[in-house]
Amino acid sequence: MTASQSTVDTAKPRLAITMGDAAGVGPEVIAAAWNFAQLHQTCSPLVIGDADVMRRACQLRTSGNVHVQEIATGVEAAASRERMPVLSPSAAPGREKSSTPVDTRDLAEVRPGTIDSTAGAAAYEAICAAAQLALAGEVDGIVTAPINKKSFREAGIEFPGHTELFAQMCGVNKFAMMLYRPFTASRPGQEQEGPTLQPSGLGVAHVTLHVALRDVFAQLTEDEIVEKAGLLHGMLSDLHGRAPRLGIAALNPHGGEAGLFGREEIEIISPAVERARANGMNVRGPIPADTLFRHAAAGDYDGVVAMYHDQGHIALKLLGMHDVVNVTLGLPIVRTSVAHGTGFDIAWQGTAAPESLLQAIDVAARLASPPSNKPRMR
Amino acid sequence: MTASQSTVDTAKPRLAITMGDAAGVGPEVIAAAWNFAQLHQTCSPLVIGDADVMRRACQLRTSGNVHVQEIATGVEAAASRERMPVLSPSAAPGREKSSTPVDTRDLAEVRPGTIDSTAGAAAYEAICAAAQLALAGEVDGIVTAPINKKSFREAGIEFPGHTELFAQMCGVNKFAMMLYRPFTASRPGQEQEGPTLQPSGLGVAHVTLHVALRDVFAQLTEDEIVEKAGLLHGMLSDLHGRAPRLGIAALNPHGGEAGLFGREEIEIISPAVERARANGMNVRGPIPADTLFRHAAAGDYDGVVAMYHDQGHIALKLLGMHDVVNVTLGLPIVRTSVAHGTGFDIAWQGTAAPESLLQAIDVAARLASPPSNKPRMR
Repeated sequence: MTASQSTVDTAKPRLAITMGDAAGVGPEVIAAAWNFAQLHQTCSPLVIGDADVMRRACQLRTSGNVHVQEIATGVEAAASRERMPVLSPSAAPGREKSSTPVDTRDLAEVRPGTIDSTAGAAAYEAICAAAQLALAGEVDGIVTAPINKKSFREAGIEFPGHTELFAQMCGVNKFAMMLYRPFTASRPGQEQEGPTLQPSGLGVAHVTLHVALRDVFAQLTEDEIVEKAGLLHGMLSDLHGRAPRLGIAALNPHGGEAGLFGREEIEIISPAVERARANGMNVRGPIPADTLFRHAAAGDYDGVVAMYHDQGHIALKLLGMHDVVNVTLGLPIVRTSVAHGTGFDIAWQGTAAPESLLQAIDVAARLASPPSNKPRMR
Repeated sequence: MTASQSTVDTAKPRLAITMGDAAGVGPEVIAAAWNFAQLHQTCSPLVIGDADVMRRACQLRTSGNVHVQEIATGVEAAASRERMPVLSPSAAPGREKSSTPVDTRDLAEVRPGTIDSTAGAAAYEAICAAAQLALAGEVDGIVTAPINKKSFREAGIEFPGHTELFAQMCGVNKFAMMLYRPFTASRPGQEQEGPTLQPSGLGVAHVTLHVALRDVFAQLTEDEIVEKAGLLHGMLSDLHGRAPRLGIAALNPHGGEAGLFGREEIEIISPAVERARANGMNVRGPIPADTLFRHAAAGDYDGVVAMYHDQGHIALKLLGMHDVVNVTLGLPIVRTSVAHGTGFDIAWQGTAAPESLLQAIDVAARLASPPSNKPRMR
C-alpha cells in the first residue's frame, strides 16, 4: 500500500456501507461494486460488517484482488480498489455492548439463503453502528445493503423497516421513504453529457408506509401529506439544484370521481395540495394514480407523493428495478439504500447485480457533498 | 363501390364499434384506425353512433377518402377502407325509444373537450344498441371508444363504468375487468414471426373495481378471488390457446409480512389460491404486488389477479398505454375497449393515436373468431 492510498481523501464524502444480511446478496453486491472505478471516484467507502464474510464475498466477486482489512477505532479507513476497510459493529464507538442477546461474532455458520438469527442480529448491529458514526459526524452518509425481517424477528428484533429504524435512532418523527430513480443517459430524451448538466430523476415519497392497507385511512391526514410534500420538495431541491415539480396522487380509483368512489380527495388531499402550494411548492393534484405515474415516467414531474406503499412501489419498481434508490427523508444524516431485497434465491451464487448499490452510493455521495469539516474517524 | 365490397365477408367477425363521447377522441381515433389495412383484414366493422360526427372525424383524419354511409335495419353493413357504415342507435333494433329524456339526435352543437349532456346520452344509447345487437347475434363483438362519466351524469345516467353497465345489460353478476397487454415483436425475447406462433400477452383481472379504496375490504372475499381467477383463466386460455400461468397479488405491503401489516393474505387470499389450484389452475400467490408486476412484466406470468383498481391500472398503464386493451370477462358477448379516456385536452385536434383502438379491435376479433353462423344484420 502506498502512502497516498492510506490517507483519507478529504475531497470525497466518507460513506459507511452496511453489509446487510450475511445470508443474502448484500456482501457480494458490495464486493462486486468495489470493482467499479466509479465507486472510488465518488466516495471514500467503509464497510460496516464482518471481515470474514466480506473476504468470502470478495473471493466470489473480485477475483481475489481486493484486500479486506479489519479496522478499528483509531485506524484510518482509507479505501482503494485494492483495499476494503471493514469495521466490525462491536468495534465502533458506543457499540462495545451489543443490544441483542444473540452472539453476532461468528457468522461462519450462516448458510446462504436461510433465515438465521445470528445474521439478523449482526445486520441490526451494523445499522446501529452506522447510525451512531453518522450522528457523530465520523461518516458523511450511510448506504444500506438489504436485511431480512424474518431473520430480525428470529433475533428478537421487531421493527417495520429500515426507514422507521433510522428515524427512531435519529429521534425524528417527521420522515418519509423516498424511492428515487435517477435519469441516466440511457433514458430517451434525457441524454446528458459531462458533469456540468443538472441531474434529474423521479422521486416518490410515501405518506403511509409499512402498515396494513386498511390502516392507511386513519393515518392519512392533511398535515401528513403537506409534511411529506415538504420533505420531498427539500430532498429533490438538494438532489437536482432546483425546485421540483410535484404531483400528489389520489387515493381512490379515478381520483374518487368527484366523490362517487371516496371522499379523501375532496376532504383531505385537495386541501393539502392547496396548503403545499401556499407554502411555495410547485404542486398539482390530486391526480388519479395510474395517470400520474404515466405522466411522471414521461418526465412531466420530478416528484410524486404516494398515499401508500404499493402505490409508489409498483410504479417505481416497474420503471427500473436496478436503477431505483431508497432515500430516507427528514433525517439529520444522509441515508440511502438499494431498493431490492436479500435475494435469498440467488444469494452467494455470484450473479447478484451491483447496479442498485452503485446508484445508492452515487445518490448518497451527492447528498453528502461538499464534504464538511467534520472530524475524521479516529 | 364494387359488388364484392358491398357484401359482408362471412369469414371475418362482425364488430360493432361504439363512437364514444362526441366531444372526446373517440370519433377521430375510429376514423384514424379506418386508414389501417389491418382493421379491414381482421374484421368487418360497423360504427354505432352519429353519421355527421363520423363524417367530420373522417374529414379530420382520413383526407376525405372515406365515405360515411348511414345504414339502418335491413341494410348490409359491408365496410371497406373507402366505406364506413354508421348505424344510429335510434335505428337499431329495439332502440326506437330512447331510454334517456335527452334528445340525442343533434350532436352538431357539441363542442370538443366539453361536458355535454347530449354527447353523454348519445354515447349511452350507442352502448345499449351495441349490446342488444350482440345479444341478438347480429354482431360478433363490441369494441367501445371512451365515454365521459361527467357527461353521463349531466344526462341523468349514473353508473360506475362501462364494465358494470355491460354486465347489467347482459344480466350477469359474475364478471371482471381485464386489462390486457398483447406482446408484440418489439418486446425483447418475445419476437414472433409468422401467423402460426402462439399469441402471448399479460392480462390483469380486478377483484374489486370502481369502489372507494376503503370499501375494498368488505368486497374482498375468497369466493370473489376464486371467481375472478377462473374468469381470467378462461379468457387467457381463449386468447392464447393454452392454460395461463396466473399470479395472485397480495393486498398489503410486502404481502402483509406474515400478518404484521394485515391479515387478508392469510385469511382470504391464500385459501383462494389453494382453491384455484384445486380447480386445476396454474396459480401462485399471494405475491407482494410490486414484485409480482415486475416478474409479470418480465414474462413470468400470463395473468395477474389484482385486488383493486389502481393496483392493476398503475402497472399496466406504465407497461404501455397505447398497447393496453380493456376486456370484459364473464359476459355472454365479446366486448373490448381502448384503455384510454376521452382525452378532452387533445380532442378534435387530429393528434389522438389510434393504436389502442386497433389493439382492442384485434383482440375482439380474436375472441369472436371463428365467426359463427349467427344471422347477419337484417
